[in-house]
Amino acid sequence: MKQILFSFILGLLLLNKPSQEAVAATAKTPNIVIIFCDDLGYGDLACFGHPTIATPHLDQMANEGMKLTQFYSAAPVCTPSRAALLTGRLPMRNGMCSNKRRVLFPNSNGGIPKNEVTIAEQLKRAGYATACIGKWHLGHHAQFLPTNNGFDYYFGIPYSNDMDRVNDSPKGRGAFNDPQVEFWNVPLMQNEEIIERPADQTTITKRYTEKAVEFIKSNQDAPYFLYLPHSMPHVPLFRSEAFANKSLRGLYGDVIEEIDWSVGQILETIRRSPAADNTLVFFTSDNGPWLIFNEQGGSAGLLRDGKGSTWEGGMREPTLAWWPGTIAPGSVSRQLASTMDIFATASEMAQVELPKDRILDSYDLTPVLQGGPSQRKAVFYYRGYRLMAVRHGDWKMHLMTQDAYVQPQPVKHDTPLLFNLHEDPSEKWDVSKEHPNVVKQLTEVVQEHLKTAKHAESQLEK
Amino acid sequence: MKQILFSFILGLLLLNKPSQEAVAATAKTPNIVIIFCDDLGYGDLACFGHPTIATPHLDQMANEGMKLTQFYSAAPVCTPSRAALLTGRLPMRNGMCSNKRRVLFPNSNGGIPKNEVTIAEQLKRAGYATACIGKWHLGHHAQFLPTNNGFDYYFGIPYSNDMDRVNDSPKGRGAFNDPQVEFWNVPLMQNEEIIERPADQTTITKRYTEKAVEFIKSNQDAPYFLYLPHSMPHVPLFRSEAFANKSLRGLYGDVIEEIDWSVGQILETIRRSPAADNTLVFFTSDNGPWLIFNEQGGSAGLLRDGKGSTWEGGMREPTLAWWPGTIAPGSVSRQLASTMDIFATASEMAQVELPKDRILDSYDLTPVLQGGPSQRKAVFYYRGYRLMAVRHGDWKMHLMTQDAYVQPQPVKHDTPLLFNLHEDPSEKWDVSKEHPNVVKQLTEVVQEHLKTAKHAESQLEK
Repeated sequence: MKQILFSFILGLLLLNKPSQEAVAATAKTPNIVIIFCDDLGYGDLACFGHPTIATPHLDQMANEGMKLTQFYSAAPVCTPSRAALLTGRLPMRNGMCSNKRRVLFPNSNGGIPKNEVTIAEQLKRAGYATACIGKWHLGHHAQFLPTNNGFDYYFGIPYSNDMDRVNDSPKGRGAFNDPQVEFWNVPLMQNEEIIERPADQTTITKRYTEKAVEFIKSNQDAPYFLYLPHSMPHVPLFRSEAFANKSLRGLYGDVIEEIDWSVGQILETIRRSPAADNTLVFFTSDNGPWLIFNEQGGSAGLLRDGKGSTWEGGMREPTLAWWPGTIAPGSVSRQLASTMDIFATASEMAQVELPKDRILDSYDLTPVLQGGPSQRKAVFYYRGYRLMAVRHGDWKMHLMTQDAYVQPQPVKHDTPLLFNLHEDPSEKWDVSKEHPNVVKQLTEVVQEHLKTAKHAESQLEK
Repeated sequence: MKQILFSFILGLLLLNKPSQEAVAATAKTPNIVIIFCDDLGYGDLACFGHPTIATPHLDQMANEGMKLTQFYSAAPVCTPSRAALLTGRLPMRNGMCSNKRRVLFPNSNGGIPKNEVTIAEQLKRAGYATACIGKWHLGHHAQFLPTNNGFDYYFGIPYSNDMDRVNDSPKGRGAFNDPQVEFWNVPLMQNEEIIERPADQTTITKRYTEKAVEFIKSNQDAPYFLYLPHSMPHVPLFRSEAFANKSLRGLYGDVIEEIDWSVGQILETIRRSPAADNTLVFFTSDNGPWLIFNEQGGSAGLLRDGKGSTWEGGMREPTLAWWPGTIAPGSVSRQLASTMDIFATASEMAQVELPKDRILDSYDLTPVLQGGPSQRKAVFYYRGYRLMAVRHGDWKMHLMTQDAYVQPQPVKHDTPLLFNLHEDPSEKWDVSKEHPNVVKQLTEVVQEHLKTAKHAESQLEK
């Protein structure tokens, strides 16, 4: 038994210590992959505590990499969250938000402004091959599409998969209970062309995966950036035949288990590639679970509320980072981090200068991935252009709250609510009365932030 | 890199495949260890999704062993839960429950009845060395103590660590906010003698651990049974100096992190022993988190309610099983199982016949530990002698509900509430109207069960 344990520990040690081959490889700029789910909840993966959804490939990704337990999206809904991820900037700075319309719709004329710089545009400057495979939702008119924003290639549904609902589909929630492809006339695009309409959503996760694997395989010599924003598990829920009625968790579980399979396919392709230990993969989500859809929505685990809300369940995401030889296997980071930080991280890794003519909300995550401290000290929780809450260190202060789909208007708190998120991650016990000094300190953090908060014209109201 | 991965995979394969040495060892009956926490919540371990409590040793235990996500205690409070674990029988069958007093108190005269057979008594028949190190709470008069119930050795606090409160301690919750050893006059016992009073609770987890390690080391030749019921994280919360102010989660986190350290010590002692691959270790808890204690209580994660309640949060426990060479590393079992099943499992492993003169509520878990199906088809949720709910397969039906510390009396449901726990682990959406046949089927399960439900006289009311 000692011998066996020795072999096992040796294996772990070797995995931790880059081989000479690995050292040579890290001299090259790393490949970067972002797998981005839609409406996945903080509690929906087995490695984040879900009892009945089986995610063996994501669990393995966690065991080989890092679990990040305090990692945030930049908004509790789709369009602003995606704009912020790709630009490293809060949505209010680029107008990809609104107090009237939460996201872009098929009748919207706006999109990601031309002067915004995406991660893809940054990495193109370093010679990366770039692809966006999946849901875009940053404008569907030609000038806003991925191929005009730094991506060599696009394949996917350009907005949410519940849009373009056809008139004679079942009314209300009926269409979601037994979803049929033809209830939604959503387009599937390749580059700037519609190649299928309605998109066959039953095979959408499978086809995104195949395209992603193909892209990785065809870029074994140059560095690449793959942005893979899944259309799922946003309702209507679809999965391919192989995953139908397989999960204990029902249809929602089937969908997550197909995404889990997809992650397995992608990591396995990377493991077998020459750049096996020179590829950084992030897995996360755009916002919390859509709770009003009951069994068809996910779970935020122990976090409060979900999609649409600035309570933790709306914006804290189940996040994994994987980079064999660089990230310590089975590590957990409890540092503060954001999807917006990927912009600075990728730029740093590719040795591309950050844009100097604008405010960025992005901090290089390299120290965090190496098990160290985060450079990010604060998270600002916006709903449209409204600053609802701020987190600084352990503390979160709510200036306003609005339960995602229950309260029609935000409620302003004359004395802000205060929670210690390290001790009270479920935001149960307001301790503002006990800690007036912390309220004062966080109020100053807000005031400093607001000095830089110039609101750009809304693209969502166009 | 391929070489590295190969070494790693080889290590895993070797770990999976018993060596010749291991095969020889498994011919002997295995050692059995039960690590039993007090009031630990389903969501309180990192491997069950807690964001700020660091449990690296328990995470490693999960990675080397099995996570059980649908594993139940037999009651939502202490005394009945422990009685059921040790006897494999529902508390109403042995009188270790009451509708008036939840648990045994220092002024109680009752305890575990003489004719009950404990796991320790079973294993003594197979020549096991047996020790109980920790909280007993099955009667503190001599005849009820561990040494008169199959254990060769006892070391620990005989009941809850918040009992025997001294009169001049701070009133109400005050005593718990800044707990001092002298606020509670609880005894520390060795065998049948009080050796310290008040017990120095600050070092209690440390001392339990040292005694446990000593017991394992001194039993390297004979099979042993170690029952290690921690006094923590039941309030008042105490931890030793080395863990003070270390956890992001505050005092409660410190306490869990010391238990995590303790698990690491015990597993490491076993790993280094000749019986390294012939020892089965369970880690679980007696009931859910004591939510009314706010930051000093735990979290049930995505489960509803906590200690005292027959909602899931009261009785589903974060459970790990570890047995190198037998349990597949990193496996997850979603099978139905109960603390009461350890009785039959241990008896089967030690090849000791089950008592034939009584009804047992215990099913051999061997198939589950090997990744197979459970023999257990139902879970009955009792509060005192009241049958509150039943689970059968995916379904849970509540005949009565009572929020742990909010509702003074149980509420009877004329139409029982019905939840699909596989799809709705948080018990949010009553679907009794949609599934009258399931209600009918579970009502039959209840009726069958009630035919066997002869209530023994309460030991808690003596």
